[in-house]
Amino acid sequence: MNDITLTAVSSAGAVNAHPLHDPEVRGFASDNYAGVDPEVLEAMTRANGGHVPSYGDDVYTNRLQEVFRGHFGDRATAYPVFNGTGANVVALQAATQRWHSVICAESAHIHVDECGAPEKMGGLKLLTVPAPLGKLTPESIDSQAWAFDDEHRAQPGVVSITQSTELGTLYTVDEVAAIVERAHGRGMAVHLDGARIANAAAALEVPLAAFTTDLGVDIVSFGGTKNGLMFGECVVVLNPQAVRGMDYIRKSSMQLASKMRFVSAQFDALLSGDLWLRNARHANAMAQRLEAAVRSTPGAKVQRPVQANAVFAVLPRDVTERLQTRYPFYVWDEQTGEVRWMTSFDTTETDVDSFATALQQEMATQASG
Amino acid sequence: MNDITLTAVSSAGAVNAHPLHDPEVRGFASDNYAGVDPEVLEAMTRANGGHVPSYGDDVYTNRLQEVFRGHFGDRATAYPVFNGTGANVVALQAATQRWHSVICAESAHIHVDECGAPEKMGGLKLLTVPAPLGKLTPESIDSQAWAFDDEHRAQPGVVSITQSTELGTLYTVDEVAAIVERAHGRGMAVHLDGARIANAAAALEVPLAAFTTDLGVDIVSFGGTKNGLMFGECVVVLNPQAVRGMDYIRKSSMQLASKMRFVSAQFDALLSGDLWLRNARHANAMAQRLEAAVRSTPGAKVQRPVQANAVFAVLPRDVTERLQTRYPFYVWDEQTGEVRWMTSFDTTETDVDSFATALQQEMATQASG
Amino acid sequence: MNDITLTAVSSAGAVNAHPLHDPEVRGFASDNYAGVDPEVLEAMTRANGGHVPSYGDDVYTNRLQEVFRGHFGDRATAYPVFNGTGANVVALQAATQRWHSVICAESAHIHVDECGAPEKMGGLKLLTVPAPLGKLTPESIDSQAWAFDDEHRAQPGVVSITQSTELGTLYTVDEVAAIVERAHGRGMAVHLDGARIANAAAALEVPLAAFTTDLGVDIVSFGGTKNGLMFGECVVVLNPQAVRGMDYIRKSSMQLASKMRFVSAQFDALLSGDLWLRNARHANAMAQRLEAAVRSTPGAKVQRPVQANAVFAVLPRDVTERLQTRYPFYVWDEQTGEVRWMTSFDTTETDVDSFATALQQEMATQASG
Amino acid sequence: MNDITLTAVSSAGAVNAHPLHDPEVRGFASDNYAGVDPEVLEAMTRANGGHVPSYGDDVYTNRLQEVFRGHFGDRATAYPVFNGTGANVVALQAATQRWHSVICAESAHIHVDECGAPEKMGGLKLLTVPAPLGKLTPESIDSQAWAFDDEHRAQPGVVSITQSTELGTLYTVDEVAAIVERAHGRGMAVHLDGARIANAAAALEVPLAAFTTDLGVDIVSFGGTKNGLMFGECVVVLNPQAVRGMDYIRKSSMQLASKMRFVSAQFDALLSGDLWLRNARHANAMAQRLEAAVRSTPGAKVQRPVQANAVFAVLPRDVTERLQTRYPFYVWDEQTGEVRWMTSFDTTETDVDSFATALQQEMATQASG
Repeated sequence: MNDITLTAVSSAGAVNAHPLHDPEVRGFASDNYAGVDPEVLEAMTRANGGHVPSYGDDVYTNRLQEVFRGHFGDRATAYPVFNGTGANVVALQAATQRWHSVICAESAHIHVDECGAPEKMGGLKLLTVPAPLGKLTPESIDSQAWAFDDEHRAQPGVVSITQSTELGTLYTVDEVAAIVERAHGRGMAVHLDGARIANAAAALEVPLAAFTTDLGVDIVSFGGTKNGLMFGECVVVLNPQAVRGMDYIRKSSMQLASKMRFVSAQFDALLSGDLWLRNARHANAMAQRLEAAVRSTPGAKVQRPVQANAVFAVLPRDVTERLQTRYPFYVWDEQTGEVRWMTSFDTTETDVDSFATALQQEMATQASG
Repeated sequence: MNDITLTAVSSAGAVNAHPLHDPEVRGFASDNYAGVDPEVLEAMTRANGGHVPSYGDDVYTNRLQEVFRGHFGDRATAYPVFNGTGANVVALQAATQRWHSVICAESAHIHVDECGAPEKMGGLKLLTVPAPLGKLTPESIDSQAWAFDDEHRAQPGVVSITQSTELGTLYTVDEVAAIVERAHGRGMAVHLDGARIANAAAALEVPLAAFTTDLGVDIVSFGGTKNGLMFGECVVVLNPQAVRGMDYIRKSSMQLASKMRFVSAQFDALLSGDLWLRNARHANAMAQRLEAAVRSTPGAKVQRPVQANAVFAVLPRDVTERLQTRYPFYVWDEQTGEVRWMTSFDTTETDVDSFATALQQEMATQASG
Repeated sequence: MNDITLTAVSSAGAVNAHPLHDPEVRGFASDNYAGVDPEVLEAMTRANGGHVPSYGDDVYTNRLQEVFRGHFGDRATAYPVFNGTGANVVALQAATQRWHSVICAESAHIHVDECGAPEKMGGLKLLTVPAPLGKLTPESIDSQAWAFDDEHRAQPGVVSITQSTELGTLYTVDEVAAIVERAHGRGMAVHLDGARIANAAAALEVPLAAFTTDLGVDIVSFGGTKNGLMFGECVVVLNPQAVRGMDYIRKSSMQLASKMRFVSAQFDALLSGDLWLRNARHANAMAQRLEAAVRSTPGAKVQRPVQANAVFAVLPRDVTERLQTRYPFYVWDEQTGEVRWMTSFDTTETDVDSFATALQQEMATQASG
Repeated sequence: MNDITLTAVSSAGAVNAHPLHDPEVRGFASDNYAGVDPEVLEAMTRANGGHVPSYGDDVYTNRLQEVFRGHFGDRATAYPVFNGTGANVVALQAATQRWHSVICAESAHIHVDECGAPEKMGGLKLLTVPAPLGKLTPESIDSQAWAFDDEHRAQPGVVSITQSTELGTLYTVDEVAAIVERAHGRGMAVHLDGARIANAAAALEVPLAAFTTDLGVDIVSFGGTKNGLMFGECVVVLNPQAVRGMDYIRKSSMQLASKMRFVSAQFDALLSGDLWLRNARHANAMAQRLEAAVRSTPGAKVQRPVQANAVFAVLPRDVTERLQTRYPFYVWDEQTGEVRWMTSFDTTETDVDSFATALQQEMATQASG
């Protein structure tokens, strides 16, 4: 019987008592390169031990409803799920009939980064519109919101916006209001992909409800992972009339966690106090600091407004390549040489300054080359 | 700006410093009512801090490949996912073409407990067969393995078995071998749903490869959650020829974790030493202890062979109802009055004995009533 | 330019002025081996010439609504589609939400003969029940109609029955009534796959509404092809409350004919007079004649009640093989040696008698062999 | 029993012996407002009578393979289906894996006019590009052909072009060649939506193979309906290596006709001689005639090159409205006032001249108004 154990041990070695990575190294590749906020991890640990009902019928998930209602109003219901793609595809299925389509920016995560999950899992047709800053407008919505009652066209049923956007920009409260008004006026629901919703609220300096519930947004993908959770997002239904079958769709979409207490406890830690806001404010501030450093670096060009926790810049290609050997980050656009840097809840001022120094060094090397 | 914080705090109260549940209470409702094994939680904590690449390009996930190859052989590749339904639907999509169907027991989790995820997300047609003990046989497979090359019938492409089964029973090594031989002989791949694969290996007293890789099983859903993880399963590809597009399918199926290090570190803690085996052996032993107690209780009838960590018994209905007020558990079959009890890695002997006492008390009440 | 023409002509020869098949040869393999009823073809010809709106906005399709309302009552709406699989999958999608499942007999066409179209195109989960004569009962429905409100199980939303069944049997009016009552009582809609609905009405000697509208059946796949049409079925919605999005679902399911007048004109020819009834009665009578002949043939065993236009019989295997060289037909069950013979609107008494003689000859050869 | 008949007759009247529409009225709304070419109808009639195997195992469908090979070369295989949407969705499924996406023009029929069938039935993600004349270019393909091997993006697997396009324009042979070269160079297959492929060949004055097989196009949706058939298209596989599972996918996509002889006989009539070419040439010539008439009408502006059988023009809105009361046709773009007129195989010179006169009258009314 010991054979079983030995097989494993011999191949991979005994369990190591030290981390396999350097916990002091941080970069700017993505806000999901970060780990877990210690307060969140502590809450997870606290939720451990003993038995509680699975699949969300536990005290942590029950309590989470209060927490979300505190932020989003009395009609809100939160459905914890595993990840952002899951949240989006569950939300969009629940808000559509079989014959609907979804209007979104051509830079939307649901269109670009989910390997076709909306289409392949949800049968959702996406109608994309050009969106230079990642933002829809009532006019761009109208460019796709037509042919209602025409059986030949998948019927536009939902407008999906991302706040803050994939390009690090923000919708103002008024801009969201105008979109909701237009969408509702055309008989469409509004979904807000809030993978970085906390960064948006922090940057806008308004409560979460101010650009969602208060304006009539129907359903939100509430992001936790990028704001310090280990894993977990919530589909938050703000308008119960706009959705159907949430429980079933979450399950059939493979997004129902069995030990849900550990998702809910994370969100509780994030949202019942001000951790969500502290983390988001901090990440945003670090992006501002980074932007300032880049702007002061000759030859580096900040490309887009820095409104949340992303900085986009155009660098000479060889600078990019050398810098990537020191810090991993992604080239956003091969054509233009634009790169993307993300800050996180755990980014330090020193991190930013060191990175800025490295950038300036590589830029200087290039200039003198 | 403080408004944002205050809104939340006022509604749900300050973050509590104590658990909301009693960590000393355990029961027999399900092995996913349990929390996380402390060794696993420690590994998660150790993996925290600093930045590592997301989506599996990290050192923890890389190392995990070695660990799985130690158990399943050199051709094995592990793809961490979020949950069991996700593992199954990813595995089955990767092992099928658009026109395939999947043969399974009518008690299979993929048929009964996944809200239609295989059909709705994967377009997979299931062909079910009666399976009194939850087990397929070569003969029952043949009852659905026909009409090959007939365009009118979705082509049987995969046989899916569960080990240990949803009914707490086990396939012997020879039984799996016979199934694989029949399936391969008919041109079908074999998928093993191993939500409780550790319990099976522990009960059979053989290495994990003995009833998988060594017999030609093509792909496995390797369960972690029910063996002490917080969340996480792995699709383990044993035969690379039998699958296509694993990376894409995992992503489009909403099962690609961004901070994957925390899934991989859990599995590392479970599998690089013997924790998986200790946990499984313990749960199985507790089921044996519970079975013995039930068998010695007049009026309670153990209904099926207890071969892993489940005990099924028939009780008088009023006994069930009274007992459920003391311990939550599920009625498996309303018709027959059969109930299901599951043991877990954290079930104690005292837990079993106390429960047995409660059962005997309620049974006595009934008898004297 | 002439090259274009010549390429084609040289390879396949000039357009032939004679049929490529023998129009005097008929058999018993399937009622879709037959061609088109001459009255139907005449109606198609009459509908030709000139321009009419496409996609159903034509006078023939408009008139068809009256015709169907004449048969099915004032709430009925008919949606012409191309084929039976299309009719079923459109109907079932319209009658279900994303999270629903469909209860049907394990011999149902939707389960056995549609290459997984319900699952693959509609994301529909099928819950099958054993049905010895191809017929559901309230009890067999109940064996799958459970776990309502349980998110883990695709919710039973529709009961689908076939009339006449795939096994050539009939539901009585009372049997359908009991099924509808049970289904509605459980909150499920009722779909009737009427690929051979005319044969059923003719055999039961009741109007079409008697076992559909009058009993509360919600939606019908009305078969035309097997009753003498060239192609075309209709989804007939009897209860508008039970469906959603019919127009869109028909289109997205690739079942919206552009030159729909030619589908509608066929149904008009079939249904505005008594052609549907004459054809069905005739086919049924030919099945009775064939059954009598088979029953009088020693060694051939009629296996199931002959209630519509199908005869199932068990023959010695070598008899089957020799007979198939003279008349094509299908073996229904390789295990038992059961074969299926179908009669059609154009089957003649001589056809039956000649076939019976051939059967008797081959049986005699076997007996003396 | 007579009740059954009487119900129907009383509601809808006896079968009428005259057409319900005026066979002398033709217009310019769509080429599918037309009926069936008499030669085609004659072939259908000739194929009637007697029994032949269903589902394509008949002599007409067998012969059709020769006919298509005559046009498309020895590797070609034709799969008759019901309609154009069906042909496209079957072809694209067969040419893709589960994780693929399809690059097409934003005006493509598959994107605009199929109610989401590619996404909803096939799980196909479409990546659209702006295409002013309805035509892709190697450059516009490249704007979507990126992120190969990136699991986050549905992998571009097929480029789909339409010939002639939805805007009545043509790809030259060289333009198609450049697209195929680029697509193949990027590892993508090429699908050609040939709903009006005959019009394209006729206009280009080259054989059908010249812009398909000879250039390496992998799979074609061959249109029949718009060229004089009653119904029916063919998926023509030119490169067997580029597809998988055609038979099964056609069936599961609800596109397998039971009495297939009547689809095949139509195509035989169209393609084994030069009927396809005569019809297409005629329709194209009528479009040229119409274009000339419109160009000579002051105030009407022909908007796009007239290269096949479509004329797009911008008219004053009130002219459009008055003209529509005399001839039905569609407004293509509400914003610009652009309208679309289609010619057909049965359009006569008199039809064109009368319509031109009507246009000039309404334009004159407007001018003098």
